[in-house]
Amino acid sequence: MTTNTPLRVALSGLGTVGGGVIRLLDANRDLITRRAGRGIEVVAVSARDRSKDRGIDLTRFDWVDDTRELASHPQADVVVELIGGSDGPALTLARSTLAAGKGFVTANKAMLAHHGLELASAAEAAGVPLKFEAAVAGGIPVIKGLREGAAANAIGRVYGILNGTCNFILSKMEAEGRDFAEVLAEAQALGYAEADPSFDIDGIDAAHKLSILASIAFGTRPAFADVAATGVRHVIAADIAEAAALGYKVRLVGVAESGANGLFQRVHPHLVPIDHPLAHVTGSLNAVVAEGNFVGRLFFQGAGAGEGPTASAVVADLIDIARGEFGPPYAMPAASLTAESKADSGERRARAYLRFTVEDKVGVLAEIAAAMRDAGVSIESLIQRGVAADGSVIVAIVTHEGPERSVAHALEKLRGSQSLAGQPLWMPILG
Amino acid sequence: MTTNTPLRVALSGLGTVGGGVIRLLDANRDLITRRAGRGIEVVAVSARDRSKDRGIDLTRFDWVDDTRELASHPQADVVVELIGGSDGPALTLARSTLAAGKGFVTANKAMLAHHGLELASAAEAAGVPLKFEAAVAGGIPVIKGLREGAAANAIGRVYGILNGTCNFILSKMEAEGRDFAEVLAEAQALGYAEADPSFDIDGIDAAHKLSILASIAFGTRPAFADVAATGVRHVIAADIAEAAALGYKVRLVGVAESGANGLFQRVHPHLVPIDHPLAHVTGSLNAVVAEGNFVGRLFFQGAGAGEGPTASAVVADLIDIARGEFGPPYAMPAASLTAESKADSGERRARAYLRFTVEDKVGVLAEIAAAMRDAGVSIESLIQRGVAADGSVIVAIVTHEGPERSVAHALEKLRGSQSLAGQPLWMPILG
Repeated sequence: MTTNTPLRVALSGLGTVGGGVIRLLDANRDLITRRAGRGIEVVAVSARDRSKDRGIDLTRFDWVDDTRELASHPQADVVVELIGGSDGPALTLARSTLAAGKGFVTANKAMLAHHGLELASAAEAAGVPLKFEAAVAGGIPVIKGLREGAAANAIGRVYGILNGTCNFILSKMEAEGRDFAEVLAEAQALGYAEADPSFDIDGIDAAHKLSILASIAFGTRPAFADVAATGVRHVIAADIAEAAALGYKVRLVGVAESGANGLFQRVHPHLVPIDHPLAHVTGSLNAVVAEGNFVGRLFFQGAGAGEGPTASAVVADLIDIARGEFGPPYAMPAASLTAESKADSGERRARAYLRFTVEDKVGVLAEIAAAMRDAGVSIESLIQRGVAADGSVIVAIVTHEGPERSVAHALEKLRGSQSLAGQPLWMPILG
Repeated sequence: MTTNTPLRVALSGLGTVGGGVIRLLDANRDLITRRAGRGIEVVAVSARDRSKDRGIDLTRFDWVDDTRELASHPQADVVVELIGGSDGPALTLARSTLAAGKGFVTANKAMLAHHGLELASAAEAAGVPLKFEAAVAGGIPVIKGLREGAAANAIGRVYGILNGTCNFILSKMEAEGRDFAEVLAEAQALGYAEADPSFDIDGIDAAHKLSILASIAFGTRPAFADVAATGVRHVIAADIAEAAALGYKVRLVGVAESGANGLFQRVHPHLVPIDHPLAHVTGSLNAVVAEGNFVGRLFFQGAGAGEGPTASAVVADLIDIARGEFGPPYAMPAASLTAESKADSGERRARAYLRFTVEDKVGVLAEIAAAMRDAGVSIESLIQRGVAADGSVIVAIVTHEGPERSVAHALEKLRGSQSLAGQPLWMPILG
């Protein structure tokens, strides 16, 4: 199944992860050769700036100025793409590499979310591997866990903490009782958040990853456009404090479910019960839960980003390829993935947390309570607490289980109310 | 790589797990065919009692009275062994199946702990798969996680909660403040513990599993004889209460480390810090942590036993085989696994918990303190608490970090002391 000739790799992108892949292959060379049954050797590299000091001797590799040429590099068996971006050079490289009959390994969740089906079809047609363990949850082997480890199961639900930046921010808000904007600024200063943090904090990055997980878990076509994504921007310190008082943590959770109703995919801040494993995922860690009809609940946790963990996932893919242990990227032939309609979230039944920032005046509570009653939302608990420096008051409600549609109706009734200072926040409670 | 002819399975053993495999293949048949690229069909079965009602229609399978004959069954590509036992019929079947050039899938941790190297060599010589995901941590894909997911890493340490019965008992002792014997009796009545519970509660079962994990993680020969195993029999309610007061949970943890000192493998009750993921593994769950030099800490959790989870792991192995995605069972050729010497545990440095049950009389504390001093053990905290109904008193000590040898010396000095009522308990603190 394997041969003793090394697997030869062309590497596109020498940023943090690209450099990490080279450092890993250097550091663990002998071990990897033993495990893979053959060596794994980088033969060619390409990046924007040849002269930049990366602390790596690049003279041993063939330098290629135009990254597109890696697809036809005569010495390479596999191309590793670490330049990112859903389209542009990354997509061009992916298409031409697979068309040239070479394997392709990528950490590019955005490209897979948008073009995964096309690329998987191309890889299968060419009979070459397309692998992307590093695209979801960094170093955690969760693509493998779903594609292979849980393969015997019908998966009802897959969900998890898929963005380390958001989890870092929420953990820090929780530990220090601080508000979002302040913690984000600090995370940016420390390099834990991008200068333009929107992809992370608005849930887009997690949505990319969720769409990949859903496809593998359910055997459905990747459907990124159907992921409803809301990030952590509107979570305030008081939400985290109220949640804690009620026995919950606030986490940005991506949830995908497959059912009679269609395919449901959503990234949203959730209240997570303190006895759920996701409640103990702190800092920049990632974690994924898969619920199978025979295995029950599987839980995977680890580092979701960073040089070492991401390089670990990229090289794990290369080892699989070197061993000849690969098959259809989405666990089954791309042509057999089903097109599911988007599930109507209004049908979902859950308990929910609602927080209103209100004016400190007579009749506000009556107005909120009336809107809930009129929409048929049953209130389990209501807490009105304190007065902030700006004179506003927090009202936090936990509803009984009921359809999301009713809660949406209640919020619709309250839209534009003079009693509310700013937008209410709704968070489902993870059940 | 795959064909459209089904993978044909001969199944030895129709107990809980064997029945589960048949039920799973029936329930998820279409999905498995899509994922595996071909059907997976049981063609022959063998068990002790043909007439027993298992709720399964067995008439559709070829019934084989002598399980040894499955190895040469003309319709079978793979034999699944679920009869158990380290030697005897299971081992005979394994040897003859591999010799006959068929694949072999097993959940038999005892057989692998004792004969894994021989069987892996035989499988590799024959070019057929030998797979055993179900042998460690039930439904959790941790063999795959180490063999493939973490394959790019040098693993420094692998450890976890590998026996659900012990974790169930410890969790129940913790939740209800009760003593071991009482909870064990209840677990036996409920069917969570065997009538002869020694394999579980004395740590042998966890030791079998640990030796398998260590071999895959470190590339070393399976060395079950070098696992030091101590179970949970001597943990009392007071230990769990003292640990809780100090910020720890008591868990039976199997730890394997590879270093300059040799290969260290031990199953022992540990104090686990409350912020460590293993502290939140409750009931009969299992969990495994692997620490890699690039990926950092990977954490896997799920159901460690039971019909559904174990069947899930067995069928995951069959799907890998149906896909043609398999290679050397221990991640690298058996002949290349290294023979490591057993590490001297006396050299290990850790903080430790010591509990003495003492007579309520003058001079007892002085005697214990002197023994600690004379052995060079530095005491971080000491609590003497209450008087039990039988007149005895508990003294719980936490030591500063130091070599285990010193603690052993201190306990040696106190051996046979008239001040002690029963054996002291030593538990390392997981660092």
